[in-house]
Amino acid sequence: MTLPRLALVPGEPAGVGPELCLRLIQQARDYDLVAFADARSLRAAADALGLPLTLLPPDRPSRAPGELALVDLPNALVPAFGQPEPRNAAAVIGALRAGAEGCLRGEFDGLVTGPVHKAVINEGGIAYSGTTELLAEQAGCEVVMLLANDIVRVGLATTHLPLRAVADAIEPVALTRTLRIIDAALRRDFGIAEPVIAVLGLNPHAGEAGHMGREEIEVIEPVMAALRAQGLTLVGPLPADTAFLPAKLRGFDAVLAMYHDQGLPVLKYSGFERAVNMTLGLPYPRVAVDHGTALDLAGRGLADPSSLIAAAETCARIARTRRSTSGGTP
Amino acid sequence: MTLPRLALVPGEPAGVGPELCLRLIQQARDYDLVAFADARSLRAAADALGLPLTLLPPDRPSRAPGELALVDLPNALVPAFGQPEPRNAAAVIGALRAGAEGCLRGEFDGLVTGPVHKAVINEGGIAYSGTTELLAEQAGCEVVMLLANDIVRVGLATTHLPLRAVADAIEPVALTRTLRIIDAALRRDFGIAEPVIAVLGLNPHAGEAGHMGREEIEVIEPVMAALRAQGLTLVGPLPADTAFLPAKLRGFDAVLAMYHDQGLPVLKYSGFERAVNMTLGLPYPRVAVDHGTALDLAGRGLADPSSLIAAAETCARIARTRRSTSGGTP
Repeated sequence: MTLPRLALVPGEPAGVGPELCLRLIQQARDYDLVAFADARSLRAAADALGLPLTLLPPDRPSRAPGELALVDLPNALVPAFGQPEPRNAAAVIGALRAGAEGCLRGEFDGLVTGPVHKAVINEGGIAYSGTTELLAEQAGCEVVMLLANDIVRVGLATTHLPLRAVADAIEPVALTRTLRIIDAALRRDFGIAEPVIAVLGLNPHAGEAGHMGREEIEVIEPVMAALRAQGLTLVGPLPADTAFLPAKLRGFDAVLAMYHDQGLPVLKYSGFERAVNMTLGLPYPRVAVDHGTALDLAGRGLADPSSLIAAAETCARIARTRRSTSGGTP
Repeated sequence: MTLPRLALVPGEPAGVGPELCLRLIQQARDYDLVAFADARSLRAAADALGLPLTLLPPDRPSRAPGELALVDLPNALVPAFGQPEPRNAAAVIGALRAGAEGCLRGEFDGLVTGPVHKAVINEGGIAYSGTTELLAEQAGCEVVMLLANDIVRVGLATTHLPLRAVADAIEPVALTRTLRIIDAALRRDFGIAEPVIAVLGLNPHAGEAGHMGREEIEVIEPVMAALRAQGLTLVGPLPADTAFLPAKLRGFDAVLAMYHDQGLPVLKYSGFERAVNMTLGLPYPRVAVDHGTALDLAGRGLADPSSLIAAAETCARIARTRRSTSGGTP
């Protein structure tokens, strides 16, 4: 069986993305990596950290320590570390689109991405609300953001909404789609034959039988009942404060939180370093780091590569799982 | 110095409250406990668990294992374990009020409470939304709910509101009062000379400079600025997902969450067993268990007494701290 071949996009060249890629490739790998980036920014990171870097053509295997295959996509200029440059916005976004395009064409088995600086991209004249949204639009898919570490997988029913907009955004069509996408991904990407998904309530104590909000009764429970009838195993709606108790978590393959700050504090508390951000619902697996550009750390060798390493390993593992599960149903 | 003298109210007699009190008093204590309860329900719990119980008059010291001073307040009837009885509602609430009244009169140094079953009290014809609210109303105080374990203290700016009502409830007067109460309690009850309070944003990423909600800019930041000018040390508004990272938590004496499910999942994940629920702002310290009546476990000796033990120890410690800090300023 050929090894998984992953597209790697470092993200903002003035941030920690390039040096994390350098740290990632210092270990031998059982998957191929092809970077979509400016060769100069990777070399600058290698120089800054004093790490070996051998750039290879994109069609060459790239698995030995220090080796990295590259699709060279020059930025407008090479920024100083810590000083992102809006003129590079088109190239940063272009690299993401090129890597994703390769995945859509079947040339790669997955996409691994570093952090992008949202404000700088927008300053550069490119409307960008997040890589997840960009990839969904490019692929023409509805997607779900799922954050995962070694303890828990947390999917989000809504993502970057003001809190006052959340309650109205919990509606049956989107919630049904979100649960279907998570269920399918647990089966296909994680190889779980009968996934158990815990669904949190929207309100405190999951509404306490309607005393503290009625969305559980009017939206969440009917959606869950309909999906159970279609074979999904769903637990809840559960009160968010006790759903994450370690003894309960062990019974769930994923937790669906209704909104950002309901689901992510425990995820980050319980294992930030190894946490990754996955986009479910795309034709290919996409796994990203769960942190930002860390401009204050860039070029200094201080940034922790654990999340990028976990992202690459997770993406490779999913690529293998997809092959083995799709092998049974040609 | 005389030992702290605490009023102990077991709560719902059909739940685990009585047996947790029995478990609590099996250890020697360096504080005095006086229970406000029906002697029959305590004896029933002692019999069910096979534990010794010597009931003493309320004016007798009660610190040896198995001893408990009691203000005997008969319930309407002795319920079976697991079967709460609405006819006992008046007595259950009466015991809470009597214990609190003793604290208000200065006869006790603090109040320790077990779990009450909200629905059964209301079925019994008594309007009751929670013990915190009852005690605040009785004392004529504004209060703050603060949950604490060995890892973190989490105050709540809003408590049991439907999620869609939260954003409008974050307003300057209440937020200012809440932060003042927490600051004062950290000084007086925990003996922290210069407390540091982390304040969470309302919106994801604390609003990301207004891109995801404006409550941080329009309400939270101005309140924080005004309080800083009055000497409070406040950090934030912080994104909730990363504020609880263990390395950050070590720098905070308390975290103020804007709402229930933003603050409590990490608290319960990180140490549910030893978590306690405190009411700040009352004239006396009040510390409660951080769990419910657990009707399915009642009378079986299976309920974990850690939270009640932590509540009593915390209340006694606060009583001592209050004496030592008030001793300096007569």
